[in-house]
Amino acid sequence: MVIECVPNVSEGRRPEIVAAMADAIRAIDGVRLLDHSSDASHNRSVFTLAGDAAGVERAVLALVERATGDIDLRTHRGEHPRMGAVDVVPFVPIEGVTMAECVALARKVGSEIASRFNVPVYLYEEASINPARKNLEDIRRGEFEGLAAKMASAGWAPDFGPAAPHPSAGATVVGARMPLIAYNINLATNRLDVAKKIAAGIRHSSGGYRYVKAMGIMLEGRGIVQVSMNLTNYEKTPIFRVFETVKREAARYGVQVLESEIVGLVPSAALNAAAEFYLQIEGFKADQVLENKLRNE
Amino acid sequence: MVIECVPNVSEGRRPEIVAAMADAIRAIDGVRLLDHSSDASHNRSVFTLAGDAAGVERAVLALVERATGDIDLRTHRGEHPRMGAVDVVPFVPIEGVTMAECVALARKVGSEIASRFNVPVYLYEEASINPARKNLEDIRRGEFEGLAAKMASAGWAPDFGPAAPHPSAGATVVGARMPLIAYNINLATNRLDVAKKIAAGIRHSSGGYRYVKAMGIMLEGRGIVQVSMNLTNYEKTPIFRVFETVKREAARYGVQVLESEIVGLVPSAALNAAAEFYLQIEGFKADQVLENKLRNE
Repeated sequence: MVIECVPNVSEGRRPEIVAAMADAIRAIDGVRLLDHSSDASHNRSVFTLAGDAAGVERAVLALVERATGDIDLRTHRGEHPRMGAVDVVPFVPIEGVTMAECVALARKVGSEIASRFNVPVYLYEEASINPARKNLEDIRRGEFEGLAAKMASAGWAPDFGPAAPHPSAGATVVGARMPLIAYNINLATNRLDVAKKIAAGIRHSSGGYRYVKAMGIMLEGRGIVQVSMNLTNYEKTPIFRVFETVKREAARYGVQVLESEIVGLVPSAALNAAAEFYLQIEGFKADQVLENKLRNE
Repeated sequence: MVIECVPNVSEGRRPEIVAAMADAIRAIDGVRLLDHSSDASHNRSVFTLAGDAAGVERAVLALVERATGDIDLRTHRGEHPRMGAVDVVPFVPIEGVTMAECVALARKVGSEIASRFNVPVYLYEEASINPARKNLEDIRRGEFEGLAAKMASAGWAPDFGPAAPHPSAGATVVGARMPLIAYNINLATNRLDVAKKIAAGIRHSSGGYRYVKAMGIMLEGRGIVQVSMNLTNYEKTPIFRVFETVKREAARYGVQVLESEIVGLVPSAALNAAAEFYLQIEGFKADQVLENKLRNE
């Protein structure tokens, strides 16, 4: 069983604090720290870990313990919105585990964080038990500075823990979601309006695909524009459909796709789905992939 | 390190003999028997194993020992060409191993087969040390029945062992090759001539791609035709290029591609290459695939 967990922590400027958090994760059996990166302007770090349910649970609790001791949101400044020392903790099913099991794990870990550290916890995305609190941006609106007032208002008591922020560590959002794919398509033009129109056409918030977030941006150094995207469920909104739609919309403006890029990690199944689509492969099964066969037996 | 090995054995009608060979492989540490299948009309069985160099070496030697005891080519009949009890033994690099290491392993195992069992061995494909004896079909021409005369003729002394066939076990061909992909493209027509013309256009032997073997056949039950292929080096002749060429050639006859199919196993990298091509992904690295990242660390 492999569960990925990607905690986002409100500290990206003091390397020794980040290193201590990484060490706390590495000290846990049953989990591996695959990656971590810090952004000083965001003043935020992202850890990527993978392991079984028990391993990622222990690692997250160890991380919360360190972060609660080392981070004080009353003095924290950064460009990225945040409301907690450990701000967001998503659990992601990768292999041999269902979304339902990740939801159960998120609720268990959320309950533990509240009872052990007195940090209130909101559940989000698939783990949410309140339809009005599924979306991370909705939960985090107002940030740490607005949290005490928000938590006291109707409908914003947390899912676990006290209905008041932890004095220095705020509140933590815990949940389960599909792997997120950061995917960009570069257009052979410098017309920002074209990238923006295409982004508006494909993103969920303005009428596009259900699991696409998108914006049009200028790549200043290269003199071209980009449709910059997050694909939040590659099974239900696959990469190839998004790519083909962007290509078609670009053609309407006489613009060609120059290239695309995947930023960071992508599940093998997301790439295989593109191969199946374009090669028109019928009846393909995941265990025909040699590496899957080797792992399973 | 993962090396795949796919021994082809001249026995496909006596299940108890095949089962004993499978058990002999399963008894070896450091190797897994992933699959085995028998064809009665071919009177031939194919075993698929994977492991490290030491594991697959021990497994192949155990298999040759059993096969040499149980199979007598003097009474063997079947539709598939063959010259040995263990007829062909290819080693295939999968992960954490180079082709050069598989070539070295093939030569070591070939030498062992000859010295331990007195079975002459020819090296083929990447492991060949004689340019005229690279191709399996050339080495096997004349089959077991013509082997004594062939081995006595100029240029056909074996690479290891005596220049005469083993009385009952003939000779064995050992080598190293890339993973082979069995890939078929079905056309939305019953015109066999179209499938044959396309196959002739893309296969190496008649002027096509270097690593494609192809033929056009009728799928009687479905009333459609198929371009049936083996892709013998997916890195140098990738699936997507073959697919696009077949699609273009078919269009010249007013015919559409109905679907394609991959028979059996395919390396993940072969599918990823198709995704990269069609999605125009720039700068993609294998360790961006989440599963590769999980395996490597």
